[in-house]
Amino acid sequence: MSTMNTAQRGKMVNAFDPSSATGLSKQTKALVQRRAALLGPAYRLFYSDPVEVKRAKGVLLYDSDGNEYLDAYNNVVSVGHCHPRVVEAISEQLRTVCTHTRYIQQGILDYAEELLATFGGKIEHVMFTCTGSEANDLALRIAKHHTGNKGIIITDEAYHGNSEMTAGFSPSLGTHSPLGTWVRRVPAPDSYRVPLENMGHWMADQVSAQIGDLQRRGEGLAAFIADSMFSSDGIFAHPKDLFAPVIEVVHKAGGLFIADEVQSGFGRTGEKLWGYQRHGIAPDIVTMGKPMGNGFPVAAAAISPHVVQDFGRDTRYFNTFGGNTVAIAAAQATLNVIRDEKLMENANAVGKIIRDGFADLAKTYEVIGDVRGSGLYIGVELVKDRQTKEPNSASALAIVNGLRAKRVLISATGAAANTLKIRPPLVFSESNADRLLTEAKAVLANL
Amino acid sequence: MSTMNTAQRGKMVNAFDPSSATGLSKQTKALVQRRAALLGPAYRLFYSDPVEVKRAKGVLLYDSDGNEYLDAYNNVVSVGHCHPRVVEAISEQLRTVCTHTRYIQQGILDYAEELLATFGGKIEHVMFTCTGSEANDLALRIAKHHTGNKGIIITDEAYHGNSEMTAGFSPSLGTHSPLGTWVRRVPAPDSYRVPLENMGHWMADQVSAQIGDLQRRGEGLAAFIADSMFSSDGIFAHPKDLFAPVIEVVHKAGGLFIADEVQSGFGRTGEKLWGYQRHGIAPDIVTMGKPMGNGFPVAAAAISPHVVQDFGRDTRYFNTFGGNTVAIAAAQATLNVIRDEKLMENANAVGKIIRDGFADLAKTYEVIGDVRGSGLYIGVELVKDRQTKEPNSASALAIVNGLRAKRVLISATGAAANTLKIRPPLVFSESNADRLLTEAKAVLANL
Repeated sequence: MSTMNTAQRGKMVNAFDPSSATGLSKQTKALVQRRAALLGPAYRLFYSDPVEVKRAKGVLLYDSDGNEYLDAYNNVVSVGHCHPRVVEAISEQLRTVCTHTRYIQQGILDYAEELLATFGGKIEHVMFTCTGSEANDLALRIAKHHTGNKGIIITDEAYHGNSEMTAGFSPSLGTHSPLGTWVRRVPAPDSYRVPLENMGHWMADQVSAQIGDLQRRGEGLAAFIADSMFSSDGIFAHPKDLFAPVIEVVHKAGGLFIADEVQSGFGRTGEKLWGYQRHGIAPDIVTMGKPMGNGFPVAAAAISPHVVQDFGRDTRYFNTFGGNTVAIAAAQATLNVIRDEKLMENANAVGKIIRDGFADLAKTYEVIGDVRGSGLYIGVELVKDRQTKEPNSASALAIVNGLRAKRVLISATGAAANTLKIRPPLVFSESNADRLLTEAKAVLANL
Repeated sequence: MSTMNTAQRGKMVNAFDPSSATGLSKQTKALVQRRAALLGPAYRLFYSDPVEVKRAKGVLLYDSDGNEYLDAYNNVVSVGHCHPRVVEAISEQLRTVCTHTRYIQQGILDYAEELLATFGGKIEHVMFTCTGSEANDLALRIAKHHTGNKGIIITDEAYHGNSEMTAGFSPSLGTHSPLGTWVRRVPAPDSYRVPLENMGHWMADQVSAQIGDLQRRGEGLAAFIADSMFSSDGIFAHPKDLFAPVIEVVHKAGGLFIADEVQSGFGRTGEKLWGYQRHGIAPDIVTMGKPMGNGFPVAAAAISPHVVQDFGRDTRYFNTFGGNTVAIAAAQATLNVIRDEKLMENANAVGKIIRDGFADLAKTYEVIGDVRGSGLYIGVELVKDRQTKEPNSASALAIVNGLRAKRVLISATGAAANTLKIRPPLVFSESNADRLLTEAKAVLANL
């Protein structure tokens, strides 16, 4: 078992730090040690007191002692833990056949058709992978092949994946995780600090400057890629007219605009099925993953035909499990539930209740600097001082761990890790929101 | 829909070619067109007359008309299509909880412990991904981080994955799929043409020469990576003393030896659980995937602790679905079945029957130049002339499609696509082998 201090180099927001752990139960301590011995030093657990999960239902998790936790964090199980329609669809398909895309299947075509109808714009093809990382990796391979360029522009604290290439443009992995020489960063649209008016042009100017630098170094621009909620930059949902000026400069430089919808897609923002649609633009590639199969590994890149033509001629794409019959059954059932249970509409309504609740708490608690988000993707930024807006990371961590002690699960995000990240399953109800707000108030009162 | 001819550039062995398709049923034609419209130009189907799969059981597949096919090709469903123990384990876990590695779970630790006990040598940690591509990508990220070098050495027609980096060292994707500038190739150990004696030293000399070139260009050696069955080079199972001299020169240059067990692992070779163990060496990293969850997306990299220490300190690894509770349930059930049903032993016995059967056919049919393999991973190489050993690609393709017409599924491999690839589920029985051999004889007689 490694004894090095990981806190400084491979930093992670809300990571369990074995070197400063106190008060763990004997059982937790034993499991943590066994885990480090078997899984090695690159894994991180959440919380100062890690949670052991045994079972789950809807928005509730249960530990090995039967304690109940309110899940206000997990966006993968977006239609709720163990949703019976998804469980049954997967089980039924497992009993029928689990095989791949080198045979003909109807299910993948039916699902592709339904999914593609949700994008509009120029998106006409969809290619299936297992993970969001694979989808982003594939999107960039296609972008590089199509443009003949190498350069990629992202926001300062972006996260886009765990493959060699996508980790190479995921600065949020920490200051010692290698970045590609072909990567340029622009500041995130920090709506709490940057004037909202003309923010799209402000952002486009930053992108233009980085395009110029990439061109000067002979890399050129392959793509600009962003998650429209800027999840790891701190969750910025507004203004909604950011991307129109950006896509213009990107296209002018011959690059592609890739919308990373791994987190913001499938109704999470409450307003539109896809986060980029809140900005009224038409990307060249849309990537998706996490909630796509409610926990089953399935992800995809949806693509404008003209950008994938050369790639399809010069090489091929096969992903052994990507879009296999069971993955498609999971994805189809999940999409059906999102539609039938009106979960996007629920995200919109319940998200507003949570944001309003935190805005109310902000009247009492000065530590809350900003409340923002869209649908059930909410950021609550904590500051030391409302005038200077100096980030308050310690309070964010204290609230996250304080809520965990009260068995409500959230996390934190942003470069300074001072923004609470609230991102529950889309089935989160009004009474779940009440419980979250009540416990948050209690934690704030005891800070 | 794209009309370009993909045959020349993005070549693939045994790919359906829409430009030369004749005699397809109306239904197949419609499905193929709809597929191209929805999934785009980078997908490939198998066979001149693609197969539509509706359901499966054991080693049998059924199309939409209820026709039965003998599956002598699919290595993913290695314990048999729809194995009830695996189906039930996945379904049960789906009903209980599907969540990730940032919470504590017992199941992943129990599985990791059991898996790690199978490697021996220096392997002590295991990290979970969703696909073999992700496992190889992660292995190389770790190798590069540990060594500080970039160079990777592979065999001529290797395939190691579909991510930007792993596709960059997968020349079998075709002559127009980009290779990394940091990639060097060595000839595969073609046991049909290269003298067997001292082949390990012959291979080590080739590797040494490429190490020298990498060092001269300032790249250095990060890793040598090989699949011990050399699947896409043409399936070479012997001699078994190849890797000892190779690992020595690799280690001397400061590089890592990575055993890609995505295809040759989990008992496929019949002799050992892991293909590299047939060569009696101890790799630094072992990657695995395809059959690990019998079709459920789960894969892993098993690692010697000292090579992952810096990586674990400087960054972290999280894979949303990798090693989630359901993936682990699938992997555990699959490993249980391999052990309980003695499938490695079955692979050894039935594989010998198939190889002996083709060796018998070779007495009559001059087109068969070589029969080779281990366990249920078998190559039958076809030649125009046994003296010159000139590859006979046309006959290989004719046999693959001839068997498909008789509803027996295999494929072909190798740089010249002239080697039949026979790689059925490990539950393939003696009577399944008889059916395969009987149909193969009929096809050979009508060539």
